[in-house]
Amino acid sequence: MVGDQKEINDTLPGDSGSGTFYAVGVGPGDPELITLKARRILENCNFWLCPAARENGQSSALRIASTIINVEKKNILTHHFPMKHVVRGQQADPELLKAWQAAARQVMTHLKRGEDVAFPTLGDPALYSTAYYLYETLVEEAGHINVEFVPGVSAIGATASAAHQPLCLGNEYLAVIPATFDDRRLKQALEDFDSIALMKVHRILPQLIGLLDELQLTEKAILVEKTSLEDQRVWYNIKEAIDKPLHYFSTIIIRKNQ
Amino acid sequence: MVGDQKEINDTLPGDSGSGTFYAVGVGPGDPELITLKARRILENCNFWLCPAARENGQSSALRIASTIINVEKKNILTHHFPMKHVVRGQQADPELLKAWQAAARQVMTHLKRGEDVAFPTLGDPALYSTAYYLYETLVEEAGHINVEFVPGVSAIGATASAAHQPLCLGNEYLAVIPATFDDRRLKQALEDFDSIALMKVHRILPQLIGLLDELQLTEKAILVEKTSLEDQRVWYNIKEAIDKPLHYFSTIIIRKNQ
Repeated sequence: MVGDQKEINDTLPGDSGSGTFYAVGVGPGDPELITLKARRILENCNFWLCPAARENGQSSALRIASTIINVEKKNILTHHFPMKHVVRGQQADPELLKAWQAAARQVMTHLKRGEDVAFPTLGDPALYSTAYYLYETLVEEAGHINVEFVPGVSAIGATASAAHQPLCLGNEYLAVIPATFDDRRLKQALEDFDSIALMKVHRILPQLIGLLDELQLTEKAILVEKTSLEDQRVWYNIKEAIDKPLHYFSTIIIRKNQ
Repeated sequence: MVGDQKEINDTLPGDSGSGTFYAVGVGPGDPELITLKARRILENCNFWLCPAARENGQSSALRIASTIINVEKKNILTHHFPMKHVVRGQQADPELLKAWQAAARQVMTHLKRGEDVAFPTLGDPALYSTAYYLYETLVEEAGHINVEFVPGVSAIGATASAAHQPLCLGNEYLAVIPATFDDRRLKQALEDFDSIALMKVHRILPQLIGLLDELQLTEKAILVEKTSLEDQRVWYNIKEAIDKPLHYFSTIIIRKNQ
């Protein structure tokens, strides 16, 4: 499945001895929301590189995947990627750069031996996944690699399902917004769009509620914590969550045309 | 998994004799992108209601699901939902209303007998799925029903994976925009957002390219037709697709910070 117009880096000639790097979306939390394809690829790869938010911490993606895949005989490296805000167009934090480069070197060792490497990543790789930083670093260092991205169920889709609300219908526009709180820009999007999905809101809830109150949108907001997990919570009155210690799997959806 | 603040319609007391309506996302096209949960629920439901875009036409969602599930013994009704634009806040087209009401009556017959009903739907139910129109009609007619939405892999996530491009990273904002061409509003979103996903662009490509040229965004646009299917095509120069008979599974993603 290669593009027509531009060669992409997955099937260059003479490449047959190289392994493939698979960035695999494992969905929002419930292991049953893993796709058949993700399961097959994770089962077939013996080497996994797993992202962890804390040093010596557990990888959420690994925890989800290992619920349905026997990982006993896998060679699993949990790699610490510091949770720092990345501002596109600016040079990344040196600590982050170092983490990606170290991970890339380990991945390359296996790919060069012809071994495939899987990188399980939360939700859908298309939305804010560390997998792309690693992929870019790999391409920078190696020129090209064999790569496949496996899409997964996103946290925003799962949040909407949990709330029994669509994100958008008909001619509605949807804005997807990350955790960073940028008052002016966020306000504009909240005013202009029919629906808004706000990801990882656990640290900005009080500020956010202030802005939603101002725009009379608080009553349209639904907060879902730990979407799709057994201890999932759905808050139809988001103000009741304001003083709660929210998990970082916390998403708010706002649909104006309810 | 019920909300805290407001009773939602899935676990009312005295409801044990009623079946459950499952709106099941089957992903963007590749049957292997179905989740384990979607497969389990579709296997367990004997009655499926399947949406079809044309009268007496095939249901794409059914075609995808029946690749991995034996449907021989299923009671499958393919229901025609006319492909008309729905403008939220306005009364729906009478033909569409009639289609939903007819479908709702059939679903209710089974639910009342205690039989579960599955409604396979393309991609993720959260994004522009007919499932919500049917659900709303069911609730209007019956007061409440037992319901579960099963999230799926979205066409936009699969398109990004096919193009080896994220939709958004770091602090980037993403706009998701449907096929309807609204020059002013679309232009604003293209100007304001870091990334834009345009769904079902098959009928508006020439107009769209005109606007993208004006904003100097044409070179950042990637078009994926039949995402994740065997005959998927990726166009890195979208102008080469302008005179092609595109399938309605056609999505454009634009990420400014490439």
